[in-house]
Amino acid sequence: MPQLRQDPTTKEWVIIASERLKRPHAFKKTEVFIEKPSYKEDCPFCMGNEHLTPHETLAYRRGGPADGRGWWVRVIPNKFPALSPEGTLERKEEKGFFRSMDGVGIHEVVIESPLHNQLLPLMEDKQVEEVLLAYRERYLTIKEDRRIKLIIIFKNHGETAGTSLDHTHSQIVGTSVVPSNIRKKLEEAARYYDDHGRCVYCDLIQEELLLEERIVAATERFIVFHPFASRFPFETWVIPKEHQASFGLISKEDSKTFAKVLKETLFKIYSRLNNPDYNFVIHTAPIKDEEEDYYHWHLQFVPRLTTPAGFEMGSGIYINVSLPEETAKFLREE
Amino acid sequence: MPQLRQDPTTKEWVIIASERLKRPHAFKKTEVFIEKPSYKEDCPFCMGNEHLTPHETLAYRRGGPADGRGWWVRVIPNKFPALSPEGTLERKEEKGFFRSMDGVGIHEVVIESPLHNQLLPLMEDKQVEEVLLAYRERYLTIKEDRRIKLIIIFKNHGETAGTSLDHTHSQIVGTSVVPSNIRKKLEEAARYYDDHGRCVYCDLIQEELLLEERIVAATERFIVFHPFASRFPFETWVIPKEHQASFGLISKEDSKTFAKVLKETLFKIYSRLNNPDYNFVIHTAPIKDEEEDYYHWHLQFVPRLTTPAGFEMGSGIYINVSLPEETAKFLREE
Repeated sequence: MPQLRQDPTTKEWVIIASERLKRPHAFKKTEVFIEKPSYKEDCPFCMGNEHLTPHETLAYRRGGPADGRGWWVRVIPNKFPALSPEGTLERKEEKGFFRSMDGVGIHEVVIESPLHNQLLPLMEDKQVEEVLLAYRERYLTIKEDRRIKLIIIFKNHGETAGTSLDHTHSQIVGTSVVPSNIRKKLEEAARYYDDHGRCVYCDLIQEELLLEERIVAATERFIVFHPFASRFPFETWVIPKEHQASFGLISKEDSKTFAKVLKETLFKIYSRLNNPDYNFVIHTAPIKDEEEDYYHWHLQFVPRLTTPAGFEMGSGIYINVSLPEETAKFLREE
Repeated sequence: MPQLRQDPTTKEWVIIASERLKRPHAFKKTEVFIEKPSYKEDCPFCMGNEHLTPHETLAYRRGGPADGRGWWVRVIPNKFPALSPEGTLERKEEKGFFRSMDGVGIHEVVIESPLHNQLLPLMEDKQVEEVLLAYRERYLTIKEDRRIKLIIIFKNHGETAGTSLDHTHSQIVGTSVVPSNIRKKLEEAARYYDDHGRCVYCDLIQEELLLEERIVAATERFIVFHPFASRFPFETWVIPKEHQASFGLISKEDSKTFAKVLKETLFKIYSRLNNPDYNFVIHTAPIKDEEEDYYHWHLQFVPRLTTPAGFEMGSGIYINVSLPEETAKFLREE
């Protein structure tokens, strides 16, 4: 019999479709490995091609001038930004009915490696640490712009996950509006806090650690698990054990332990499912709510193994053809 | 400069990405036409293969027994249902933290034609009318089940739109919960009604008819347009001009005019974009709200021309690389 499960952090329902249920190994990609060169002449993200990109906003390099060679992580403004620093925050009304405003914001690209054929799960720990430190550093700089209300850090890997450039990279977007679905998550978290005097994510971590059945990994500072109401097969959350509303508050030291646990998670997925396309997003509090007691930042990882369709579009209810208890076990058992 | 546009019915923001903007013709699919047979031995939806499906719940046929040949539209329970009629509505709690319930509901398939190689936009008007009458008839029967709170009618066309069976069909799902994003749409509509004493969709129709720039087609009873804050290229809404909260209240006569305008819309997309994959969903009020003054049913059509990725997943804000004013003009000018 199908089951409806409710996400305790959002109150959204998910259908676990028992009639359609697939075993974890059924999601393994069959595609063969394509060897790629370490440098491509026309790739704007490859070392040596810095002239093909806008001027960098950050780079980790051993001396030398900006926009030159010798870097190991480089951050640049997106050449085709979804939001841009120009414009005003003024709302425009068309006859009082339609509202628009300038698309004010920041859109940057984090080039995670100078090598064209690198992949985040296959990098050395040190390199992933540097990528996470770049996220942190850009977060802290971007938030100084008072027009920016929320900073979203995300990665698209592979064509079906919406990326067009295959040189490994992630993106940082600062928005001048707080999206309503982020506000809804905050409202639900605040409601739980009002009811229980505790953060719902802190309680969630405790419950998952007690039950053990959906845990993929747990370190001293982070836990990795497949949520009770997973919307997608192998949906994975990485969350700090200690309460912290904003990714912007992470210490340099914790950035490194976060990097290690993230890399290990990505590597498990890479090797067990044969390099599937995926997205991940860091869900963090809006800047004005960075110190709140009720929200708790976390990373959501979703491999592209199934296709949400008309039902999800019409209802907002996701149909999941896997059991998080089974997929977590599958990843645990190496 | 990118632009943020707000949907007046949901208050959700959409980014119109001017730096990435594509002209309408750039979305035309290049794939060539693959000829298909009118009958396939192993297709459960083909005429003559009725024994491969569960017992029909409705069929339009010239006499003859149920589950036999001779039908032109046939409705069956989904063999692998996302929700099923068994079970109870009782909530189960795991230690007071995780909540689940039986996946109670109805999940049916509407086989739109006995022929394997038919397509909705290429059918005769009469056949599309019969499909819409089947939607209506099943809606009215399913709503008699008091456990059903909302009925969602949708279609997935093509592999990237999430369908696995290529014999033309649509689906009807009755849910025992009202999803929170439907409730949110209702809340926004109610808020507008409280402010203005009018339905926001009725006002929207008037505005679009006045402006004319996003209209694809307008008949006596329906309008077809690309919304101001379109989330996707060629997102198209079909909406009755007269106020009606629920698709369940549509008259038989209006079903036929709805069929005509839907078919013409699908045909325009089919021929101008070369048969893209697509989804459509009928957004209708929950059953208890069928008579409300503030909600207004409509069909949302979305071709699969771009891939929402990490940013959309993390923010709920869609990035649209087309201008609805341009795409609507492109469809108008045949």
